[in-house]
Parts: sequence; C-alpha cells; structure tokens
Amino acid sequence: MEVTARAPGKIILAGEHAVVHGCAAVASSIDLYTSVSLRLRSEDEDTIKLLLNDIGLDFSWSIRRIKEVLSHLGSPFSLTPTPCSPETVTSLAALVEEQRFPESKIGLASGVYAFLWLYTSILGFKPATVVVSSELPLGAGLGSSAAYCVALSAALLALSAPVELDKSQKGWFTLKAEAELVNKWAFEGEKIIHGRPSGVDNSVSTFGNVIKFKSGVMTRIDSNMPLRMLITNTKVGRDTKALVANVSARKSRHPGVMCSVLNAIEAISDEWCTIIQSNAVDDLCLSANEEKLGELMEMNQGLLFSIGVSHASIETILQTTMKYKLASKLTGAGGGGCVLTLLPTHVSGAVIDKLVEELESFGFQCFTAGIGGKGAQISFDHSS
Amino acid sequence: MEVTARAPGKIILAGEHAVVHGCAAVASSIDLYTSVSLRLRSEDEDTIKLLLNDIGLDFSWSIRRIKEVLSHLGSPFSLTPTPCSPETVTSLAALVEEQRFPESKIGLASGVYAFLWLYTSILGFKPATVVVSSELPLGAGLGSSAAYCVALSAALLALSAPVELDKSQKGWFTLKAEAELVNKWAFEGEKIIHGRPSGVDNSVSTFGNVIKFKSGVMTRIDSNMPLRMLITNTKVGRDTKALVANVSARKSRHPGVMCSVLNAIEAISDEWCTIIQSNAVDDLCLSANEEKLGELMEMNQGLLFSIGVSHASIETILQTTMKYKLASKLTGAGGGGCVLTLLPTHVSGAVIDKLVEELESFGFQCFTAGIGGKGAQISFDHSS
Repeated sequence: MEVTARAPGKIILAGEHAVVHGCAAVASSIDLYTSVSLRLRSEDEDTIKLLLNDIGLDFSWSIRRIKEVLSHLGSPFSLTPTPCSPETVTSLAALVEEQRFPESKIGLASGVYAFLWLYTSILGFKPATVVVSSELPLGAGLGSSAAYCVALSAALLALSAPVELDKSQKGWFTLKAEAELVNKWAFEGEKIIHGRPSGVDNSVSTFGNVIKFKSGVMTRIDSNMPLRMLITNTKVGRDTKALVANVSARKSRHPGVMCSVLNAIEAISDEWCTIIQSNAVDDLCLSANEEKLGELMEMNQGLLFSIGVSHASIETILQTTMKYKLASKLTGAGGGGCVLTLLPTHVSGAVIDKLVEELESFGFQCFTAGIGGKGAQISFDHSS
Repeated sequence: MEVTARAPGKIILAGEHAVVHGCAAVASSIDLYTSVSLRLRSEDEDTIKLLLNDIGLDFSWSIRRIKEVLSHLGSPFSLTPTPCSPETVTSLAALVEEQRFPESKIGLASGVYAFLWLYTSILGFKPATVVVSSELPLGAGLGSSAAYCVALSAALLALSAPVELDKSQKGWFTLKAEAELVNKWAFEGEKIIHGRPSGVDNSVSTFGNVIKFKSGVMTRIDSNMPLRMLITNTKVGRDTKALVANVSARKSRHPGVMCSVLNAIEAISDEWCTIIQSNAVDDLCLSANEEKLGELMEMNQGLLFSIGVSHASIETILQTTMKYKLASKLTGAGGGGCVLTLLPTHVSGAVIDKLVEELESFGFQCFTAGIGGKGAQISFDHSS
C-alpha cells in the first residue's frame, strides 16, 4: 500500500513583526506543496528508508538499530501527541549522525530527527520507504518545514491503524475529522525543528485557506476572493531572531512612533480580512478590491521599511515590480527572504513572464501561486 | 549705495503631507542662499533693471512706463504690507510681457511680477539695478521662491527711508526688529507666486533655525544640534496638488490605516523637536542623537512610501545611500523633488565625495548643507 500526502506552504499576507507585539496578522496557504510518499515494505526487509529528493540526501536505518535506540517509542500509538523530550532528541541525533550527515547541510538535520520521531511514534517499527519532494524553497519563510511535518504526519496517520480512512477513494481528497490530529502531530514535529513555533504555519498547511492570528489565538477566515501572487525569493538568508530583536529595540527607542506604526499594520490586517471575506458581485467590484489589496500591500511594505526589516534585495524587487505598476511587500521576517507581488486578474501572462524574466536576471527565484487554497490532501495508490 | 541681502532655502525635516491633515511638521533653514544686490542709480538714469543671473534673464523698465502702469502704487510706503490685488497683477503682467518673456520660462514670470510689486511698494519709482543670484535649484521644494522674496524684501527695506538700519555696520548682519516686516512683505510676494502659500517657507527663510508648524500655527524651535544633510535633487518635476489629492483619496479609502500612519508621522515630528532641542553633553551623546534622527528619517520615509508619495527616482537614491549605511527621506511633496540624507559627524569627506559621485552618475544633483542656520542677512557695500 502506498499513500501520498501533500501539504501547502504559507505566506504572511499582513502583520508580520506586528504580531510579536500583540497585533493581528494574516497568513494564507499557497498552492505550492511538499509531498510525502510512504510505501510500507514487507516485514522481512527490515529497513526504514528516507529519501529527501530536493536536497539530494537519503538515509537507511535498520529496524533493529532504531529499536535499540528508541525502544521506549514505537508503541502504544497515542491519539494525543506528546512532545519529544530533549533526551529523545539526543537519541535521534545519534541515529542521524551514524548516516554521515554532510556538514554543509547540518541545518537540515533536525528535519530528519522530526521524521524519525513522527515515524516511530505513529507507525512504530514497520519497514518502509518514504520519499519527500517539495515545490517550496527551504528556509525562505514559505513554511517549508511545516508543510513537511504536515505531509509527513498525514501520510503516517493515513496508514496507521487507529485512523480509519476510506482507502478506496480515488485521487486527492482533503482531510476532514482527522485533520486536527495531523495538525497536532505536525506541530510536535515543528517543535523539534524550530524550538518554539507559533503553530500558525502548520495550521495553515493543514487547514488551508486564510488564518488570522493575534496573541496566540487563531481564527479561520473564509476567503471569497481568488487571488494570485508572484513570490520572489531573494535567496538572502536572514536571522529572524535578530530582526525581531531589532524591532523591539527600535520600539523602546521610539515608543510613540512605533506604537502608531504597529497600529497601522494591525489596521491593514483587519482590512485584508474584511476585503477577502466580502462578496465581489461583479468584475468591477473584484477589480476595485484587488486595487485596495495592492494599496494595503504597498502601505504594509512602507511600514515594514519603517520598522527596519527591509533589505537591499527586497528594495530591488520593489523597484522592478513598481515599473510594472504592481504592488509588492516582503513576507515573513524580512531582511531577505521572499517578496509578494499581487497579480491582479487583468494582468496578462505575457506581462508576468516579462517581469519574472527581469527578476530572475538579478538571480532571484520566482514562483506564481494561488492564495488561500486547500490544506493537506491525501491520495492512495491503488496500483500497488 | 549698494546693499546685498541673502536669505536661506528650507527643507522639511518631518511631517510633509501629514501637515495637510492637521499633524505637526518641522521645517529648517539650510545654508544655501538666494542673494539680491540692490544699487540705487542717479535719478536721471530713469530705469529699473532686474538681472536674474541663474536663469539668464534680464529686464529693464523705464520709470516713466512703470509710473504709467502702476500710478496707484509707489507711495505712500506702508509699514503694514497689503496684498497685491488681482487687477494689479494684471498690470504687472503687462509690464513683463513687454519685455518679451521667453515662453519656455513662463513659469517664472510670476517671480518678476513679485519683484515689480515689492519694488514699487517699498522703494517707489527710484532708478536702480537689482541682481539676483541663487545657490538653490528652482522648483525643487527647497524654498527658492521664498528665499527670493525674503532677500528682495530685505534689500528693498534696508534702503527704504522708514527702516532705520545702521548702515555703517561691516560684513553680514542678521535682521532683528525689522525681520518681522521683511517676513510680511516676503509673504505678500509669495502669494503672487504661489497663490496660497502656508507662510512656512518665508518664515524659515527670514528667521532661520527650525520651525514647527501645525494647523497654521508656527512655533520657533531653537536647535542645539549642528546637523549636515546631503540634499539630492532628483530633477523630477512633481505636481504637488495631485500628490496631496492622492493622499486624501487614499485616506478616504483606508481611514483606519491612514489615521495611524499620520499619527506616526506626527510622533516623528515631535521627536525631532525634542532631540534637536536637547543638549548633547558629549560626542557620544551627539552620536546617539544622530543615530536616532537617522532612524526617524528612515521611519518617515517608510511612512511617506505608505501614503504613496515616493517615486522611482527617490527609491534609487535610497538604495544608493543605504549602501553607505546613511538614512534618507524625501523632503517636501515627494513624487520627485529632493531627498535628504543625514551626514553624521563621523562620516568622512571622502565617503561623502564617493556617494555624491555615485548619485551624480545617475544624473542627480547634490548639495551638502548645514541645517538650522541663520535667517536673512544684510551687508552694505561701503566702497560705492
């Protein structure tokens, strides 16, 4: 039996950084996916294989060796996910080190710890081959680790005994009752990778659509508006912690100014939700709403510049999209990372192609993505 | 007897556009001057000559012709300036047209109307030669017309009978009691040129230093901080009225966001005033204050971008100064015009030269200027 699960990446539409200071932010799924295919092998094959296609790494552990190290895991399977203890992380690290993890990719090792832990916690010690591939750039703020954890959890749970999925379904189907459980397991995986994630990324990846979050509370927003964005990856790595700390320091130096700036950002998040939930009765109305969202993005970018989280690479992208009269903003922590450009319905494919060509000539990487689509999905391969 | 008066240009340090919506703004004099030299001629020479050096125009009117057209002006001299009536403007226009004003420079004709009106109102029909030269670019938002009106009024009043200046003084001296009168006459000149000026430009040019203005009320701020700015002229002309109207339209589309953005700009204006009035006890403190002002400028620029008044040329300048880790903001209406770059005391001349070279290679024009210096000054030439 083979199952494939896919889970979408996310973008922050509005409110990044302000959310750290108690203001609302809005995140959305994008139709770029991380996929996890899981094929159970016969019991006598005695290995668990993990193939990470995009980064060119593969691992193979003997079941015996995994049992030795993780004897306390593997059973019984719990419907209430529990955190991975620091001691277990140490054991997982030992298992990964044995596979000669390349030094240059060491930042990705925690993703393999998360795999081993989710796998053994959910499926125990069954031999299998797991293949991961992704349309999402890693570490660019598009929620690639959450999409990985969600797709992995979904695939594992789909083949676990206590989850009763109708395996005769054909094609992709969306998770329903079991989505909450997938989300919780994915969050535990995210904790292994990120330490203290907000839970927004895995929630958006699991449930799709748009989520507003403020002071730790998440509210699902049902968007009525089809939206497309160009996502441009600057490929400039950033230090999120330092960026967040710099914003706080600036707030303590200029409390009056920063307080109003954060209020303005929150007002942008609120307006985003109002607009995408409204019913555009005709094309004229849709076009007016797109124009308003473009203005909100421009304003948000100005405010992000104000709090000091822009970057020369981001400004270059803005300058370029401005020539095409398209509104852009950074998404996520800033200081590099990705930039969103709203693609209104009236913009032709030829114009977008030209813009992409120009942006890629600077060495940036472009994706076009639909906004607010479905969350995690599963498909069973009936041929095997 | 010859007198030369010079009056400084101005920049908006903070609060442009927000001031239209009732928020505070801060303007400062810059040590770039417009100079007016006035030499009275013997009564039998019968002409009034005006030489506008920088734009390569000169005019010569016979006293007889001026008397014909402006018989109702010329006397008695009033210490309370009165507005120039629309009928008088029509008469002045006739006098200027007779001198074959070049079509390409017709936008500057109102400056010549202002000259004729100030001249005849203050000095009557005395023959003289008046030479105007300026370090300020015209129409770039640096207050060139106000500096012209202030210098002109100061020179004229210095030689008028009711103003009793000690003409034996040597070198430049600052106007004292008579400054208020100069300012009022200059404002009447500004009204001929601009229709409905705010009065801020002529006040800054007359009194120098820094002025905070809000809802039509001006407050003089005594800066304790020596400051230098690089002023870069994009040479992109802008339509101030359209820019102001666009901001108002954006405010009506996004009232919540814009209200907070305008509050943030006002907080920046307030903080500017607090910092430049504080006494920096040592170099460390001065340097910390410079850093804060740089941050305020960066934040202000972000907010001006948010309200939609930046421009590709402005963004190019920002990108360039950012490479040198120098903070910049547009000054004035935006959409072109000039950009300010703070030059902290620790920045070497060599670095500034390199930056200027880079900016000028784009076709921009750079000036370095001291901020908050003296207002209008007068000097008598005793050799003649």
